[in-house]
Order: sequence, then C-alpha cells, then structure tokens
Amino acid sequence: MTKLFNDPAQFTEDMLVGFLDAHAHYVAGVPGGVVRATRTASGKVAVVIGGGSGHYPAFCGMVGPGFADGAVVGNIFTSPSAQEAASVARAAHGDAGVLLTTGNYAGDVMNFGLAVAQLESEGIEAVYFAVTDDVASAPKGEEAKRRGIAGDFTVFKCASAAAEDGLDLAGVVRVAQAANDASRTLGVAFDGCTLPGADHSLFTVPEGHMGLGLGIHGEPGVADHPMPSAAELAATLVRGVLEDLPENASRRIAVILNGLGRTKYEELFVVWGTAAQLLREKDFEIIEPEVGELVTSLDMAGCSLTVMWLDDELEKYWTASADTPAYRKGAAVSEQAGEKRTDAAADAAVQTPVLAELSDGDGRRCGQFVARAVDAIADMLADAEDELGRIDAVAGDGDHGRGMVKGSSAARIAADKAATDGGGPASVLAAAGREWAARAGGTSGVLWGAMLSALGARLGDTGTPSAATVAAGLRDGYDALISLGGAAPGDKTMLDALLPFIEEMERRAGEGESWRDAWPSAAQAATDAATATAELRPKIGRARPLAERSIGTPDAGATSLAMCANTIAGTLNSGGDK
Amino acid sequence: MTKLFNDPAQFTEDMLVGFLDAHAHYVAGVPGGVVRATRTASGKVAVVIGGGSGHYPAFCGMVGPGFADGAVVGNIFTSPSAQEAASVARAAHGDAGVLLTTGNYAGDVMNFGLAVAQLESEGIEAVYFAVTDDVASAPKGEEAKRRGIAGDFTVFKCASAAAEDGLDLAGVVRVAQAANDASRTLGVAFDGCTLPGADHSLFTVPEGHMGLGLGIHGEPGVADHPMPSAAELAATLVRGVLEDLPENASRRIAVILNGLGRTKYEELFVVWGTAAQLLREKDFEIIEPEVGELVTSLDMAGCSLTVMWLDDELEKYWTASADTPAYRKGAAVSEQAGEKRTDAAADAAVQTPVLAELSDGDGRRCGQFVARAVDAIADMLADAEDELGRIDAVAGDGDHGRGMVKGSSAARIAADKAATDGGGPASVLAAAGREWAARAGGTSGVLWGAMLSALGARLGDTGTPSAATVAAGLRDGYDALISLGGAAPGDKTMLDALLPFIEEMERRAGEGESWRDAWPSAAQAATDAATATAELRPKIGRARPLAERSIGTPDAGATSLAMCANTIAGTLNSGGDK
Repeated sequence: MTKLFNDPAQFTEDMLVGFLDAHAHYVAGVPGGVVRATRTASGKVAVVIGGGSGHYPAFCGMVGPGFADGAVVGNIFTSPSAQEAASVARAAHGDAGVLLTTGNYAGDVMNFGLAVAQLESEGIEAVYFAVTDDVASAPKGEEAKRRGIAGDFTVFKCASAAAEDGLDLAGVVRVAQAANDASRTLGVAFDGCTLPGADHSLFTVPEGHMGLGLGIHGEPGVADHPMPSAAELAATLVRGVLEDLPENASRRIAVILNGLGRTKYEELFVVWGTAAQLLREKDFEIIEPEVGELVTSLDMAGCSLTVMWLDDELEKYWTASADTPAYRKGAAVSEQAGEKRTDAAADAAVQTPVLAELSDGDGRRCGQFVARAVDAIADMLADAEDELGRIDAVAGDGDHGRGMVKGSSAARIAADKAATDGGGPASVLAAAGREWAARAGGTSGVLWGAMLSALGARLGDTGTPSAATVAAGLRDGYDALISLGGAAPGDKTMLDALLPFIEEMERRAGEGESWRDAWPSAAQAATDAATATAELRPKIGRARPLAERSIGTPDAGATSLAMCANTIAGTLNSGGDK
Repeated sequence: MTKLFNDPAQFTEDMLVGFLDAHAHYVAGVPGGVVRATRTASGKVAVVIGGGSGHYPAFCGMVGPGFADGAVVGNIFTSPSAQEAASVARAAHGDAGVLLTTGNYAGDVMNFGLAVAQLESEGIEAVYFAVTDDVASAPKGEEAKRRGIAGDFTVFKCASAAAEDGLDLAGVVRVAQAANDASRTLGVAFDGCTLPGADHSLFTVPEGHMGLGLGIHGEPGVADHPMPSAAELAATLVRGVLEDLPENASRRIAVILNGLGRTKYEELFVVWGTAAQLLREKDFEIIEPEVGELVTSLDMAGCSLTVMWLDDELEKYWTASADTPAYRKGAAVSEQAGEKRTDAAADAAVQTPVLAELSDGDGRRCGQFVARAVDAIADMLADAEDELGRIDAVAGDGDHGRGMVKGSSAARIAADKAATDGGGPASVLAAAGREWAARAGGTSGVLWGAMLSALGARLGDTGTPSAATVAAGLRDGYDALISLGGAAPGDKTMLDALLPFIEEMERRAGEGESWRDAWPSAAQAATDAATATAELRPKIGRARPLAERSIGTPDAGATSLAMCANTIAGTLNSGGDK
C-alpha cells in the first residue's frame, strides 16, 4: 500500500514538487502539469499526454526530447480538468498545433475534448486522441470501447517521435491512429493497490489467484483464474494478445512486458524468457522490447503484455531516440573501440595451459600422486560424512560432512583429469581446488579450494618438491585461510589443526627430513590438535548458547582436516611414489 | 511477495535468460553472470560488480558503456561463488586489469577475494573493493565494518566512469575508495519481502511502524519507529546521513533517494520534495540527484537516502554519461532549437485579449447584462442548493446543488471582472464558463462550462445579437453537451430541458421575435420539460435499482437548467438592457 504521504489530499501536488525538483533539467511545472524545460520549436507539433497520476513513469516521466512535450497531471487515478489540459497544451504549443492524447476513459475523453474546444477558440490547432489497446475491456469488433492501458506507451512514443520527425498535426494524428490500431494489451493482477491515506485496497484478489484483464486504476480483472507459474502466465498473455491479431499484421513486433508496480524486474524477466520464446515460435521478430515499469498502478501486483505490429514507419518511431526523466533511449556515450563478442562463454573460460608441456617427468609423477591422494580423501570422506555431520550439528548446522563429500568428489574428478592430461602438482591441485570450492557450497568449500590452490602454486609443476617447499606451500594455504576466513588460531576452526600440522612439518623440514618422512608425525600432530579443540569455544559466527554447548566436542573442520592429513599418510605408506 | 516463478530453485537462471534476451544489445551471458556485448578495449580497466540477485537494476542492469564491464549474478540475496566471480572477470578483462567490487558482506568479501587470487594466478591483474556506506550497520569510527547498500551505486558509477576515462587500475581503485569514503546511506523499511516460492516474508514490520537502518537482503531495521509522514521521514533520513558527515566534506553533493521495490516513484517524489529542501537549507548544492529504484530488495517496502560529497573528480564521474539496460544518462537526442523557458506558467496562461479593444459599446452593454445574469443565477442557486441536492439524491450522489453553487459562484466573479474590463458577451461568457468548469467539479460543471463558452463564441463581442444568433449559440451549446456528455434526449439529463428551450427560441426567432421577447416562453418550455423528466428513466451512469427509483422525480440537471433560464427571464424583466 501507499505508505509515504503528508496530507493525502495534497499527494499529487507534493509529488509534483519533488518530481520537478529532481528533474528540473527536463521539465518545468505549469498549472495542471508539466512541460519540457525548453520551448517547443517553431514548426514542431506539440504532443501532450496525460490522465490521472499514480501511473509513473506515465505520464510526467515521459516528457522530453523524442517523447512528449507536456503531461497533464490529474489526481491519483482521476482525470485532470479541461482547464488543466488546456493550460498544459497552451504552454507546450509552439506554432504547429497540439495533439492531446490519453487512454480511453470517460473522464479523460470529456475533459481533453473540452480542452481541444477551448484551445481552438484561442486559435490553437488541437486534436484529441484516445488509446484503446486493452483487449479484455471490450470484444473484437468493439475496439473503440476499449480502455487504454500499457498501449498508451506505444502510441504516445510513436506519435511523439513523429512530431519530433517534423510531421504536421495531421501526420502526427495519423501515426497515433496507426500505432493504436496496431497495439494490443492483455494484463493480469495478483493484488490491488491502496490510495494514499486509504485504509484498504481498491480491490483484492483471492490468495492463490489472479485477475485476468486488469485496469490501471485499481479496476480488478474481468475473470478470476488460479495463480499460474511464470511460464503459464507468459503463455496466457501471448495467446490472449495474439487472438486479437489486427488485420494485415506484420511479422515484426514491438513488445512491452509491463510491471504494474509491485511485480519486480526479476519476475518480469522470468516471464519474458518464456514470452519471447513463444512469440518467436510464432515467427514474430521482436524489435527492441521493453521489460519493466512503464505504465504502473501505484504498487499493484501484476503485469501486462503489449504487442504493437510494426510497419516501416512505426518501427522507425518505436526505435527512435528519446531522453526523458524516466525513459531514455539512444545514448551519447557509445561503445568505444571494443569489438562485438562472438563467444562470451569462451572469453570467460580459464585459458587452460597444455599441462604436459608445463610439467616434466617428476612433475607428472607428483601430479599423479596428488590425484591418488585426493581420490583416497574422497573415499574416506564419503565414509565419514555422517560422523562429521553429527559433530558439526552440536554447534553448527550439521552440513559439514555433506559439504566435504560434495567438494572432494568433484575435486577427485578434476584432479584425475588434470593428472591424466600430464599435469604436475600445481595444475592438479589448482583443478582440484577450483572444483572443490565450486561444488562444496558453504565456507569450508571455499577455504579448502583456496588452501589447495595456494599449496599447488608453491609446489609448481616440475621436479620433486623438497620438504621445505611442501611446508612453505602449506603455510601459503594457511595464510590464505587467515585472510579469507577472518578466523585466528584458538577460534575452534580448522586452523587449530592446520597450524600444529604445519609447524611439525616446518620443524622436521628444518632438520632435513623429506616431506614423506615428516608427513605422518605432522598428521598425528593435527589429530591431537583437532581432539584438543573440544576444549575451545567458537569465537565467530556462532550464537553464545551454541558456542557454550560446543565445549566438549571437537571442531568439525579441524577434525576433517586431520582425517585428510592421516589419509594422505596412509597413501604414502601404501604407494611407491616419491 | 514474489509471485512469478517457475521452479523457485531455478529462479535466478530463469531471470537471466529473460534479462539477456531483453537486453541482448547491451549484454552477453557468461558462466556466473553477464558482460558487455562488446569486448573491453585495450588499455581500459574492466570493472566487475556484483553480489547476489534480487536487487535489480543492481547489478546486471548496470552493465554497459560508462558503467560496469560485467556483473556477477548470484542467487537471490546470496553471494556468487569465487569461480563465478573469476569467470565474469576473465570475460570482462581486456588487458589493463580488473576491479571487482561489491557491497561489504562476508560471503562476497570471501568469494570475490578468492576470485582475485585465482585471477592473479592466471596472470590477470585484479583488485577487490568492498563498499561500506550504510551508517546504521556500524558506528562512526568503525566505517570498515559497515554494509554496502545504495552507496554501491555511487561507488560503482564513479569507479566505472574513471575506468571509461582511461585511468589505470590503481587510479580506478583510488576513485572507488574516494567515492566510498564520501558516501553515506541511511535506509528504512515498512514491510519485508518474500523469496520466490517461500510462503512467508523474510521479516515483518509491525503495522504502523517502520524499521530504521534496513539491509538490502531482507534484513530488518536496527530500530523500530512509529510510521512517520513523508516529511518527517525526509527529515529523519537527512539528519541521519548528515550526522555522519565525512571529514572535509564539500558543499556539493550527489544524492540518491532509492526505492527498495514496493515504495513507488510517486511516494519517493513526495519524500524528495522535503529532503531536497532540507539539504539546501543546510547550504548543500545537489548535483544531478537520482530519485528511483537503483538498488532494490525484491518487493520490499522502504527507501534510503544516500549522499556522496563531491570533489571535482567525483563530480566529473558522477555526472558522466552511461548507457546500460537500466541506467542511461546523456542522450544522443538533444533538445533541438527550443529556447530555455524563463516563465513556464506564463506560457500556460490564456493570452487574455484586451477586452475593451475587442468589444464596442453595444458589446460592452451586452457583456454587462451577461454578468448581471450570471450574478442572478449564482444568487438563485445558492438558495436552491438544498432542493437540488434532495432531487439529485433520489438516483444520484446528491451533490448537484453543491456543484452548481460552486460553479456559479466562481463564474460570477470571473464574469464581473471580464465585464468591468470592458468585455463583450463572448469574453464574459468564456471567462464565466472557464471558471464554472474549473471550480464546480464533476460532470455538470464541465458541461455548463462548455455550454457557456459555446454560446459566447457564437455571440461575439460586438453589436447586439439577433434572436437567431442567440438561438444558434444555444444550439452550439447543446451540440457541445451532446459531443462531450455522450447522452441523448430522453436519457433524463439536462438535455431534456435544454432542447425544448432551444426549439422554442428557434421557433420564435423564425417568427421575427427578439431574443428578449422570446426568452420567457422558452424558459417556460424548459420548466415544463424539466417537470416531465419525472416520467423518464436514466439511461447512463446509473445502476438499475437507482434508475427505477428515480421514476416520479424530475432530473436535477434539467431542473437546475430550467431554473437558470427562468432567472434570466426575471433579469430581463427587471433590467433595462437590450
């Protein structure tokens, strides 16, 4: 509902003050509405649009070069008076006449018709035109009785562009008529809207239903349907509009998927995906579609589909540039030297090096060992999933086991492929880390991916790494976790197992041991440290009651890290690799 | 709530399909998000923005010349993965490095940070920057802990414009830092939003309240306040943002009043009217403000105010042109020969002729008679208000008396002034008709205004009108009513009194009588006909039960018309005018 107002009776006046202030570059206020900030040039027909307010950007948001010369602004959902329409038209008028145009509503027809009489009595050539695009409001054959809804936009746009193009008043009226003859709209509503200061909605739609054939003044739909999926709705709208195909309809169409106010762009794009496909399946070519809020109804939930069948003239005016407070098309800033993309996905892909060329024989053997280690880890974690989940559930959401399984399973496949392709440890660990992070979900996946990649980057793809290099790689991984995760040792995280592991590796490397010899005792240090995390209290990301509850239970992340370290120790014992 | 979706789990993917289709001119899809449809030019830094979706036009709607080179698109309110961020950055990258930037949220910080590490490992120079504009999310002095909300827009816009301007990566990062240091936002929410497929809102605000300090991921506000008026809200937002004035703040400011999704443009303009005034009272100069939906939160009700204090460099980048799916600034179509308006209201005013020059002595005397007749009618209607109201209430809303009194009172003043200024009958009747229609409200006021104007146009401002001219003028008025009101004789309207009146005038004029002699019997014919309308049933604008009920009661409009005709007859008897 409309929540922000001062005196509800002054809502439109207050709105205009803010609108004119925000868009002073484009518009100036006059009694009854707004006109462009510059005078209409000699020889140019003025186009004045309007009706009640509550439809922003219709109508005052569409005043500017390439679009309307003025907009008459009535109260919310209420026709402006004839005096107001004449006032705006008088200010918009240059010397070549005025087209006044609105949607087809009794109040607008009467008041804008009177304004035309008044203007003519003052010697200003003026014509009134009413838009009738809403197929739900009167049957085929009675098109003149239909309401104007989002087709206001197609008609106003084309007539305005024709005026900008230098057509005389008769020509501009002819284009408005042609655009209206070629435009059809069908709309739906899911929920009503509330006038400023009112305590109830203008109408309601039963929960789980939608009204087909809504109006834009809070009129409910003409038929009640169960709420469809986005794809079903797209089909309903496309079918409804195409059933009303004008005579001699072309294959080129302008299309608007219009949001009424509360139905947001994300939802409109979901509907558009199907609507565009269905229209193309019917052999229509869609020309510069508009998906968004163009003719709204306060915060009404709903949308509408408009099709305007194009001839050459209408296409020229539909695609013409415009520059208004709310609608801009054809920008001064043009794409610079950049070439048009031909395969954007390829641009996004990692430029995978030919792995065998990066590595040497030793490197390839090390890569194969890494792949076997990842394979063993994935097997181990699959068995340990439930246990890790139980530990994690004491103070967390219990998904640690699942995440480790998903990550390591994906990493196993990637590592195997990289090793088979001849990659050294850097390539294999990078591939494994990438997939682990991509598939595991959650924080631990990201951290494991980073740790493996950092380790790999230090190891390189050639030769056999020294114990010092392995220790340094593990330290790089540890540093990556610190910078990414924001945790510190003692916070009851995987760091509390990793740091003792690394320190043991560093100590033994310093004493000249190979990394293979050093690994088992480092893994034991990790296990001891993981067990010791039972005495710690989590510092980050846990509410206090959960943090207290976790005392006595080791950290799941530290536990799984130690299990992985021990699995690798087992692989070292069983295999013959260096 | 979000109503339109297919499989909620596929909402983001479905949305991207529609977005890419609708905006194929601007963007191409890549794994993880979107990039411009053209490749980044050599030497230009690429700017990649992002975060979760649900914030349209943030973030994918801001990809295009002058703005971002790519946007990473996570699921609704969920950080994209590091792989997705790296993928988009890789595709956006030209040869001059990439700035990746998001709001400051733990998931984005971690994943985009990892993406930077990944990109650097591939030889792509990359920097990550997190926006921290939300003053409600951490106190002054702890700015680095603040969330990024609508200030995302100011920072992304300036950094992107700097990249377009040719700055190197360090320069672009410096501009992002400067824009962030200079940006402050405070937001409020009135109602939550609902994820696709969910059956309840992410949070609720008690009816009649608002949450101060909202987040853009459905986080509720940090403090609960009673719902303010629009002006009070503007004051709260301005005060809250200015309390956090950065050091060395300039007097020139970029300002965004951002709608969260359900708070519509009309409401935002009402708030803006006060906010702009308050900011100017504090001696700030507002540079190209944005009032609208830039960083949304699905259909959340609420808004936020962002101020960015400008130095010369930030002002240059804030005002630079851009051309993206959802944000365009600086149009190719420029205002043509039109001169800048200096007094728009004067352009809208009727170019009042000097009345005395239009009329002659006879005309002026006739004008004075018309003014006296209108004066008499206004007196008569003031006495008859209740009676006309009672008649109208039988089948209508009972406001006919009130409308006739309001219209005739205003017309009396206008007619008196026009006659005093020396106007003839055309000028006096035009002035009277204009004011009657403007002030009476409702349909009858519009019709009376039209009838008087049409009569006056026929009478002219000079000489003494013949009976035939008066009859023709009345016939013109009748024709105006027919064309405007859509009624026909027999429909139980004022036409049923007016037509016999005119026919009697025409008959007597045809026999050579003066209009003064003919008038009383024509007025009697109107009275008889008005009485006879009691036997008629209304044809238009009345529900059947009311129409049936009206049988036996004359039409209020026909009655008041006959009363006016008789009042003029009395004026003719009492005065000495021709």
